Amino acid sequence: MKKADRIYYGGDYNPDQWDDKTIEEDMRLFKKAGINLLTLPVFSWARLEPDEGVYCFEWLDRIIDKIWENGIYVCLATPTTAQPAWLSTRYPEVLPVDIAGRKRTHGMRVFFCVNSLKYRERAAAIAEEMAKRYAHHPALAMWHVSNEYGTYCYCPTCQAKFRLWLRRRYGTLEELNRRWHTSFWGRVLTSFEEVTLPTELNDDYRFNPAIQLDYMRFVTDSTAECFMNEYQVLKKYNPEIPIQTNMSGYIKKLDQFTLTKNLDIVGWDNYPWPDDPPYFVAMKHDIMRGLKGGRSFILTEQSPNQQNWQPYNLLKRPGEVRRLSYQAMAHGADTCLFFQMRQSIAGQEKFHGAVISHSGREDTRVFRECTQLGKELQSLGDSFLEGCTPAKAGILFDWNNWWALELASGPSKDMDYLKTVSLYYETLYRQNIPVDILPYDAEVSGYDLIVAPMLYMTKEGVAEHLKDFVRDGGTLVTTVMSGLADENDRCIFGAYPGKLKDLLGIWVEETDALRPYEKNRMKLSDKLALAKAEYDCGFLCDIIHTEGGAQVLAAYGEDFYAGCPCVTENSYGKGKAYYIGTQPEQAFLDDFMEMVCGGCGLKPICQTSEDVEVTLRVSEKAEVMFIINHGKTEGYIDFGTDTLTGLLDQTKLTGRMIIAPGDVIVARRG
Amino acid sequence: MKKADRIYYGGDYNPDQWDDKTIEEDMRLFKKAGINLLTLPVFSWARLEPDEGVYCFEWLDRIIDKIWENGIYVCLATPTTAQPAWLSTRYPEVLPVDIAGRKRTHGMRVFFCVNSLKYRERAAAIAEEMAKRYAHHPALAMWHVSNEYGTYCYCPTCQAKFRLWLRRRYGTLEELNRRWHTSFWGRVLTSFEEVTLPTELNDDYRFNPAIQLDYMRFVTDSTAECFMNEYQVLKKYNPEIPIQTNMSGYIKKLDQFTLTKNLDIVGWDNYPWPDDPPYFVAMKHDIMRGLKGGRSFILTEQSPNQQNWQPYNLLKRPGEVRRLSYQAMAHGADTCLFFQMRQSIAGQEKFHGAVISHSGREDTRVFRECTQLGKELQSLGDSFLEGCTPAKAGILFDWNNWWALELASGPSKDMDYLKTVSLYYETLYRQNIPVDILPYDAEVSGYDLIVAPMLYMTKEGVAEHLKDFVRDGGTLVTTVMSGLADENDRCIFGAYPGKLKDLLGIWVEETDALRPYEKNRMKLSDKLALAKAEYDCGFLCDIIHTEGGAQVLAAYGEDFYAGCPCVTENSYGKGKAYYIGTQPEQAFLDDFMEMVCGGCGLKPICQTSEDVEVTLRVSEKAEVMFIINHGKTEGYIDFGTDTLTGLLDQTKLTGRMIIAPGDVIVARRG
Amino acid sequence: MKKADRIYYGGDYNPDQWDDKTIEEDMRLFKKAGINLLTLPVFSWARLEPDEGVYCFEWLDRIIDKIWENGIYVCLATPTTAQPAWLSTRYPEVLPVDIAGRKRTHGMRVFFCVNSLKYRERAAAIAEEMAKRYAHHPALAMWHVSNEYGTYCYCPTCQAKFRLWLRRRYGTLEELNRRWHTSFWGRVLTSFEEVTLPTELNDDYRFNPAIQLDYMRFVTDSTAECFMNEYQVLKKYNPEIPIQTNMSGYIKKLDQFTLTKNLDIVGWDNYPWPDDPPYFVAMKHDIMRGLKGGRSFILTEQSPNQQNWQPYNLLKRPGEVRRLSYQAMAHGADTCLFFQMRQSIAGQEKFHGAVISHSGREDTRVFRECTQLGKELQSLGDSFLEGCTPAKAGILFDWNNWWALELASGPSKDMDYLKTVSLYYETLYRQNIPVDILPYDAEVSGYDLIVAPMLYMTKEGVAEHLKDFVRDGGTLVTTVMSGLADENDRCIFGAYPGKLKDLLGIWVEETDALRPYEKNRMKLSDKLALAKAEYDCGFLCDIIHTEGGAQVLAAYGEDFYAGCPCVTENSYGKGKAYYIGTQPEQAFLDDFMEMVCGGCGLKPICQTSEDVEVTLRVSEKAEVMFIINHGKTEGYIDFGTDTLTGLLDQTKLTGRMIIAPGDVIVARRG
Repeated sequence: MKKADRIYYGGDYNPDQWDDKTIEEDMRLFKKAGINLLTLPVFSWARLEPDEGVYCFEWLDRIIDKIWENGIYVCLATPTTAQPAWLSTRYPEVLPVDIAGRKRTHGMRVFFCVNSLKYRERAAAIAEEMAKRYAHHPALAMWHVSNEYGTYCYCPTCQAKFRLWLRRRYGTLEELNRRWHTSFWGRVLTSFEEVTLPTELNDDYRFNPAIQLDYMRFVTDSTAECFMNEYQVLKKYNPEIPIQTNMSGYIKKLDQFTLTKNLDIVGWDNYPWPDDPPYFVAMKHDIMRGLKGGRSFILTEQSPNQQNWQPYNLLKRPGEVRRLSYQAMAHGADTCLFFQMRQSIAGQEKFHGAVISHSGREDTRVFRECTQLGKELQSLGDSFLEGCTPAKAGILFDWNNWWALELASGPSKDMDYLKTVSLYYETLYRQNIPVDILPYDAEVSGYDLIVAPMLYMTKEGVAEHLKDFVRDGGTLVTTVMSGLADENDRCIFGAYPGKLKDLLGIWVEETDALRPYEKNRMKLSDKLALAKAEYDCGFLCDIIHTEGGAQVLAAYGEDFYAGCPCVTENSYGKGKAYYIGTQPEQAFLDDFMEMVCGGCGLKPICQTSEDVEVTLRVSEKAEVMFIINHGKTEGYIDFGTDTLTGLLDQTKLTGRMIIAPGDVIVARRG
Repeated sequence: MKKADRIYYGGDYNPDQWDDKTIEEDMRLFKKAGINLLTLPVFSWARLEPDEGVYCFEWLDRIIDKIWENGIYVCLATPTTAQPAWLSTRYPEVLPVDIAGRKRTHGMRVFFCVNSLKYRERAAAIAEEMAKRYAHHPALAMWHVSNEYGTYCYCPTCQAKFRLWLRRRYGTLEELNRRWHTSFWGRVLTSFEEVTLPTELNDDYRFNPAIQLDYMRFVTDSTAECFMNEYQVLKKYNPEIPIQTNMSGYIKKLDQFTLTKNLDIVGWDNYPWPDDPPYFVAMKHDIMRGLKGGRSFILTEQSPNQQNWQPYNLLKRPGEVRRLSYQAMAHGADTCLFFQMRQSIAGQEKFHGAVISHSGREDTRVFRECTQLGKELQSLGDSFLEGCTPAKAGILFDWNNWWALELASGPSKDMDYLKTVSLYYETLYRQNIPVDILPYDAEVSGYDLIVAPMLYMTKEGVAEHLKDFVRDGGTLVTTVMSGLADENDRCIFGAYPGKLKDLLGIWVEETDALRPYEKNRMKLSDKLALAKAEYDCGFLCDIIHTEGGAQVLAAYGEDFYAGCPCVTENSYGKGKAYYIGTQPEQAFLDDFMEMVCGGCGLKPICQTSEDVEVTLRVSEKAEVMFIINHGKTEGYIDFGTDTLTGLLDQTKLTGRMIIAPGDVIVARRG
Repeated sequence: MKKADRIYYGGDYNPDQWDDKTIEEDMRLFKKAGINLLTLPVFSWARLEPDEGVYCFEWLDRIIDKIWENGIYVCLATPTTAQPAWLSTRYPEVLPVDIAGRKRTHGMRVFFCVNSLKYRERAAAIAEEMAKRYAHHPALAMWHVSNEYGTYCYCPTCQAKFRLWLRRRYGTLEELNRRWHTSFWGRVLTSFEEVTLPTELNDDYRFNPAIQLDYMRFVTDSTAECFMNEYQVLKKYNPEIPIQTNMSGYIKKLDQFTLTKNLDIVGWDNYPWPDDPPYFVAMKHDIMRGLKGGRSFILTEQSPNQQNWQPYNLLKRPGEVRRLSYQAMAHGADTCLFFQMRQSIAGQEKFHGAVISHSGREDTRVFRECTQLGKELQSLGDSFLEGCTPAKAGILFDWNNWWALELASGPSKDMDYLKTVSLYYETLYRQNIPVDILPYDAEVSGYDLIVAPMLYMTKEGVAEHLKDFVRDGGTLVTTVMSGLADENDRCIFGAYPGKLKDLLGIWVEETDALRPYEKNRMKLSDKLALAKAEYDCGFLCDIIHTEGGAQVLAAYGEDFYAGCPCVTENSYGKGKAYYIGTQPEQAFLDDFMEMVCGGCGLKPICQTSEDVEVTLRVSEKAEVMFIINHGKTEGYIDFGTDTLTGLLDQTKLTGRMIIAPGDVIVARRG
């Protein structure tokens, strides 16, 4: 994006909801709060194109000029998330068909078929109209395409395109039959025209993982195409302006590695739930940062106060927005944007928090907090912008794997990939060890430790990659439900963990599923010295056989497989490969991963007390440390002999420093 | 209705299900039980009109004559709740389309589109046929139109009529866009033809409150029209005979103030759940009584024993029917009618209780109890009929407000208007203070106290009304979630409680939502002396600022808004306006409302023990007091120095009288 | 089936999923495991008929020959459970319409309209092709038609056929109106063409029991026809080969007495849940055995290890498959077949257990256990094949009754026929008293005791049958919810239990429904001496009056009906009829039924400890006793002075013998 001299601070603004007087007042308040970026006009297609090809941009010209006169940049959004009613009415093919086979009627937003040619035609046309008009406007900092893509459509257009997509992917019907293993349940196809979308009308969306997997890939590809439809138009008029779309974060339904391949910069909306632990939010930021190889991203939305769509919309506590904002920046955000600047007076989100509430007053807690944060951000300048967050530990993460794992019927209905990943993330987070989230095909040779929780789908080349990594001295930790299937969810022929067998030195005979109230015990062997001699485990229990020299680090204590290994270690080349064949209690993960990290030389950024998070961002200009106390009591950080400079108050920081509950320190190293 | 010399006692009777011998036996049993009114033929359209325009009324002639020969009046029902199969088959447009967009097929009752012209044509025709035949029959006591209206239809006819309804209501498209605030989420309309009904196909029924609100108003209006379609025909033939329809009580989906505007008398079906507390049933009666300004109503249905459609259909305990019957009369009922006189042998309701059960026997508990009640009602004569139930306290109640409040997304999913109203009703009920339930546009000048729980929607004129009321000396109590929105659910521009701000002397900055397991505390200031110094509160917590002189009566004890006011009092003109910014525990409401009632001179009818309900009905003939012990132990009532006459046993009543568990006293004052 | 010299042991095999090398390996492993029967090709229609009328059987010829060369029999399955995609695509009428009125698209298995003429044409054609080819193949042991029938379809074809079915069943419209009691809710029909299927579009499937009951009968009849469509073709070519279809066990939706009328032998799939108690599995076997008057049946499927479709798919514990297999044989199974022989590598069931797992290894626990079982079965030979399981106690069981009872709205939503039956089954099972499950029209004169739990629907002749039975000296036990309705679910006119009133000497005035947390007490009279003087009861409580001499054995202890009888005994002719008007705690049933059994001379097969099940099968060759310890601790069986021969190890067994936890003894008497 056009680089500002400080962090972009602001958010979504809907001036077409307000009269001139209100807009005037808004400008005054925005300046007071230190706002320097406004995103608009996200939902204004119907205002901008009241009839097909009839454009009405004068009001937007005026408002953009006014914003710029007030020294504020604009993130200009194509309004294509909400097509006008006339478009849906005149061309019903733009409306999606849902999974139950029902043609939708006009309403809502993100409510169009991404493959509709008419939709794409009109979306490109209005994007072009905007590009012509504003691509060189001095206020324009970046483009924002549409909004929170994610509609699954099952219309005839999609069906036809899906067949074409399959033909291109697999070439022949024979190959399709082979990949989908259609001999199971007699699903053999004799023509591509016999492929039907997986819906509630055939239950394939839940009972036919191979089709559903490909359909999900197809929707991702189609959505990426739909994004590119506007991207290419916008780019034509001014290639300098970066283009993004705001994603609903880490949502499961679109493969975001694929979706973001052609974005100039990743943008995402961070709406944590009240009980989300800080590490979980941190992990989501790191996933977003991981989408483009560790590059910084845009925090496109967060709420300056309560949400409206949760069951119980708690107010954000004093300081909470500030803490969440710095956490985003710590993990790679180059902006701090809110949904929304002024609270809508009607509609579904009328009770969603805003910088300026219905009251319109500036003597509110929220406005005061936003103003304080605005001041701080001004004082930070651009020190850490575009900075990276260096890490020597990586966690493998993959959307296809997520889909396949949770589509599986058996062994347990509680399969939860994101949660499993988060358990391993948490253990590293607690130890203040920075982590990169990596796609399955990432270059891993630079890392010391790779964790691959539930690496169920061993995509082409992944096993080989990991073997090279370990052979060259790397350390790998992987778990139960790894090495089972290929990219089409066909299980390996031969024992689990399939292609990882010799790397891990084991084979898995069976996997028991425990009910939520059932447990087993892990008894540590004398090869493994942790804080305790026994830990609990549950959920799934692999029955493991070592084969080829793996060492048994722990064995089950209960049930008919008592004594059977549950954790193993295998030396492979210069490195080590660990296998955890069950879901241990968190204490085991903490103790075990500390041992593993120690073994491969990973060190925490700093020592801190329990609730204090510490992160390091390194830009060309500076090394900036973010220290956040998420707790309700005083915490500490120990800088040791280093001396840093507090950027918010210019204090010198060294040794063991106290940090107040809920407080934040931003410090420059050196 | 044609005035009988005593309360109408009887209920629904379906003679077309029975042979002559059974009907003969029924007449004998009805007379034995003191029955003097039968409602029929509610579901007999197909029998009366076996083909279009072909009528077959002879069997009904005979049964009506027989009933009248037995000295029993008839409540004559148009059978239009259940159109014949031939009508649905020949004219599918009479069948509704459901919210999922599915055309229904024939079946069930109340299963037609209220806007179908063909339905209305055939309904008017059969109503006319009945009116011609029976409008002057001596047995005819009243008309009963159809049955438990309430079908929401989404067919093309309804869609077209809804557009017309909007055009008439709002005049121009500009006004519609303004009222619906369509600039939110890009919903701007460029033609009335772009309006689509809010269904599952566009999710507007839950995500677009403005459309959904108007749709619910439209259904109410359409239903009222559908009722009037028959009403006008019936009235033409004998304007003396009153006309009603039995409503499913206090149901949310139809605005019953609007629906009953043209009824001659309100009728409703009382089916309490086993655990409904007595005050809740009392409140529902009072809502029904409130529909037509306090006028008496018809209890059209109650069960003489168990229901069949509850999860667990407990038998009604001995005396329970009697107690519920007197409670209805105490609160305004001029009839005591059962569904049903004889139990159907088949179908969905075959296990629903009846005066005569499948056994056909008269030596049953239920028949005995019904007979005893019949005798008592005979002895009461017409003393309290058409009597009113005088009250100086009123609770504002509004269907539009109910809809809008519970359509809102945020602040809490547990928003429950009826329950909130009932909490305030309960506090007055416990103190034996009679209450009128009032529409928002009611004349309130005659009351001492008005309670307006969650007055979310400040309809045109309501705030002004309430200000006049308080200025002239009245006392107002209102609560959290008041003063937020207008009739189209647009939130006020400026702080809550909007137009009530100066009346209450406060503004509300934020509203926190607590989870069910969370609480705050209310610490009373020295301006408020109640039984305890602190009470619990929860659900929602307004963060209140006094502005213009309101006094703080209580403040929060916990969280970041500890110390912030939660209950305030404002002197305004000669009166007082209280604001309760949270949901206090019931003990607070009891203590607080007792203080408030004392302050405005409200007195209980009598002092009684906890479980004893006392109500007064005043007719031209008499002042009759109903005393009901809902408890399982002895209770008392203290008549003080008054002397009354027990109408059931002609005893003299004065001073403190004991009332047996479950027993009823009906007494005449003076 | 073609009689083997030992039990058929094997299961489902899908060779079209495997290459030649794998098939070769499978043959080796099958022989090693003692397999002598393979079921195939269940899902291979599309492979066998790649286009309409174009057959491709060569691969199947080869595999059948290979199997036979390896000394293994074949259960040859018509592949009609999974029609080819071309059939669904070219003739969409073969696809079902679901209860929501939605036309299904191709996918899944058992996914066709059983009434589709096109489906039946193509199914008969491929069956004929198979019969021509294989009817005299030496490997052919039996036919297997389709797979787990059970699709409910609501298409126009079904609607038309249902009207015809009704016309045939009831003759006239008058009779239909009478039987369906259409006068309730105005459902009178004036043409058969007005009948609509009971769907979600009219809610008749849950609100109109008479229609729904007949629809369920119609689906059963249609499914039986669909089975016969293939049966007749297969039979034509070789009448010697028995024909069956594998049923999903005791499923509710098809009346299996009707469905199996024309099967040569009953086949069923046994998939118990982890927490199913052993008696529940035993009862399901006995239901299957009861379908054809006690004749032995085929266990068509069970899993050699975990399932994949349960929420938590526990591994089968060591010995569990063996124990379940012997339990099946003990209760009448003449085969021991698995789904599946080799685990599919993809699709919905890829994690379902198999004899040969994905690993393909033979050094697995499961393969070892299967091999051990194979050896044992070889050693047992054909000693008990086609043997019966003699019993003097019978439990009446009926699908129409099941449907009607659970369709009823009221008195309690928790009505559960199968569970209620199982409570009575359990009491007999615990006492080691063998039981036959009998249809309502069974010949009962040979039994000493008949138990008829919730004999709600007194079908034509049933009451008379039972009276004859008791009059001639039999003992009857029946319960609450008996004698209420006729075959069209019309309740009796006159008191419950209707036609059973004089047999039981009582009438039931009312039935109270208790909530799950509510109880009553049963106080025993001095006529009944059991272990305790009082027991708990709940769920439903009949208020009973004796009439005509029944004796009160117990009366309620609580509520307004305290003192009212709840258990009665009536002498009728030479026998006795007991009525239990509530749901007693299990201890009462145990004690009471022990008393009743003693009274009618029923004796246990043997005395055993708690968890040990004992069953006797008597064939022409031998009397074989199966003793299974389902417990986790040692148990015993006391053979008394008998001496038996253990068939697995040829030991002599007499007196009190210890049986290890989880172990099985198969012993020959005499």
